[in-house]
Amino acid sequence: MILQGVDSRTGPSFSIGNRLARGLWGVVWLLLFRTSPRPFHAWRVALLRLFGAQIGRHFHIHSSCRVWAPWQFKAGDHVGVGEGVNFYNMGPMEIGSNAVISQGAHLCGGTHDYTVANFQLRAMPITVGERAWVCTEAFIGPGVQVPEGCVIGARAVLTKTPEDGDWSVYAGNPAKFIKPRILRG
Amino acid sequence: MILQGVDSRTGPSFSIGNRLARGLWGVVWLLLFRTSPRPFHAWRVALLRLFGAQIGRHFHIHSSCRVWAPWQFKAGDHVGVGEGVNFYNMGPMEIGSNAVISQGAHLCGGTHDYTVANFQLRAMPITVGERAWVCTEAFIGPGVQVPEGCVIGARAVLTKTPEDGDWSVYAGNPAKFIKPRILRG
Amino acid sequence: MILQGVDSRTGPSFSIGNRLARGLWGVVWLLLFRTSPRPFHAWRVALLRLFGAQIGRHFHIHSSCRVWAPWQFKAGDHVGVGEGVNFYNMGPMEIGSNAVISQGAHLCGGTHDYTVANFQLRAMPITVGERAWVCTEAFIGPGVQVPEGCVIGARAVLTKTPEDGDWSVYAGNPAKFIKPRILRG
Repeated sequence: MILQGVDSRTGPSFSIGNRLARGLWGVVWLLLFRTSPRPFHAWRVALLRLFGAQIGRHFHIHSSCRVWAPWQFKAGDHVGVGEGVNFYNMGPMEIGSNAVISQGAHLCGGTHDYTVANFQLRAMPITVGERAWVCTEAFIGPGVQVPEGCVIGARAVLTKTPEDGDWSVYAGNPAKFIKPRILRG
Repeated sequence: MILQGVDSRTGPSFSIGNRLARGLWGVVWLLLFRTSPRPFHAWRVALLRLFGAQIGRHFHIHSSCRVWAPWQFKAGDHVGVGEGVNFYNMGPMEIGSNAVISQGAHLCGGTHDYTVANFQLRAMPITVGERAWVCTEAFIGPGVQVPEGCVIGARAVLTKTPEDGDWSVYAGNPAKFIKPRILRG
Repeated sequence: MILQGVDSRTGPSFSIGNRLARGLWGVVWLLLFRTSPRPFHAWRVALLRLFGAQIGRHFHIHSSCRVWAPWQFKAGDHVGVGEGVNFYNMGPMEIGSNAVISQGAHLCGGTHDYTVANFQLRAMPITVGERAWVCTEAFIGPGVQVPEGCVIGARAVLTKTPEDGDWSVYAGNPAKFIKPRILRG
């Protein structure tokens, strides 16, 4: 997705509508989301839905979490999100059912094209497959698809969709295949 | 340490007593610890001790630091802890005398067993040996013992107890042995 | 730059003048910088200049950013700084024109000499060359010179001045040369 062709170091990259919506969401987040008591998961889900998020049943998200644009955020059922997770979804973002995103993880859906003079901002989609686990403080880069059942280890940095497929464990920076994830029962 | 056998994505993993104690500590942390002026190290130590922490003399800890469960936190003498350190001690945690934990480090004592369907939470101990230095924003994983005198470099990610023993320097993600730490005087 | 020869675990490493200046700056930062509305870049630049920073035209910096000592901070023209960037400039720090420092990056100008018993604090300079991009949550260590036009990838950890020279892309922890950065137009 290519955004407005402006110099992204000095000018706005997004439409006025997008910026107004984010401004409004920012106020709502600060006043109503960020301040909500710990167990008020349903309240926070309601706020996200009010801004267009499509979220299934039993979605747990903490008040310290950020969602850049709720209207392009989707999540399935029984998803757990730890404290301080940053869903920087400049592009569409989708979290599969039964996935877990642990505290401090950063899913970063924006980058710049550093090969052009105006440093063009690029927004890219991110998906996290069902039953995947993005561990604490892991980083998922723009355009990455975390396959079903994968474990992305603590502090791992995954900037490409892994080719080893689903139900695998990745760790390190850059993240590398460690072993298959085998369920015992 | 295996905790209650519940589905940790949707149900509580800890006993009601543990959760009440943490709730109370959370309130005390927010109102009395987090708000304390920078030089009030003794005050913060007193609060931690009130909740069962065993801490030696000259323990410096900043108001932005977090301790998950003070009652399973131990530290020796002359320990320095930088801003924003996260002692996520789901299991017992012990910091040796003359150790330094720099700003933003994360000592993470909890994980999940991703090979079982209920995603069992596991709490594991962490120890940091005497005269060790856990540098800024380093990550120490569950069950890891940082040997005496070791330096865990800035942003290093140490998820296993290193086999090269004490007085060594480790860096990278995953953290690797770099060189011995030799004292000149 | 070697600082006062005290035990940096228990005693102050900086002169009383430095500590007073930082104390005053800390109050100003908390009351006037941290609280400023998002678009008030010029206001924040004025505050930094009041404390001695030398900053060019069109410097964008967010209210969540920290500068340890503005009086040893220099930046050129058209520099963009993302949210939560930590300029931990214990030594002199200089950011070249048209550079971008993305959200959550940490430029860390202090370390300790772990080979001496008093754990001597050392403050070291950091420079970021013109048109360089320090990506989100990257870490630049003490004494490092980021060459002109280089891209230091998301979460990359650069603790040495890279020998491959300017206009290169580095990523990983430790950061490694990935490819040259070639401008298409």
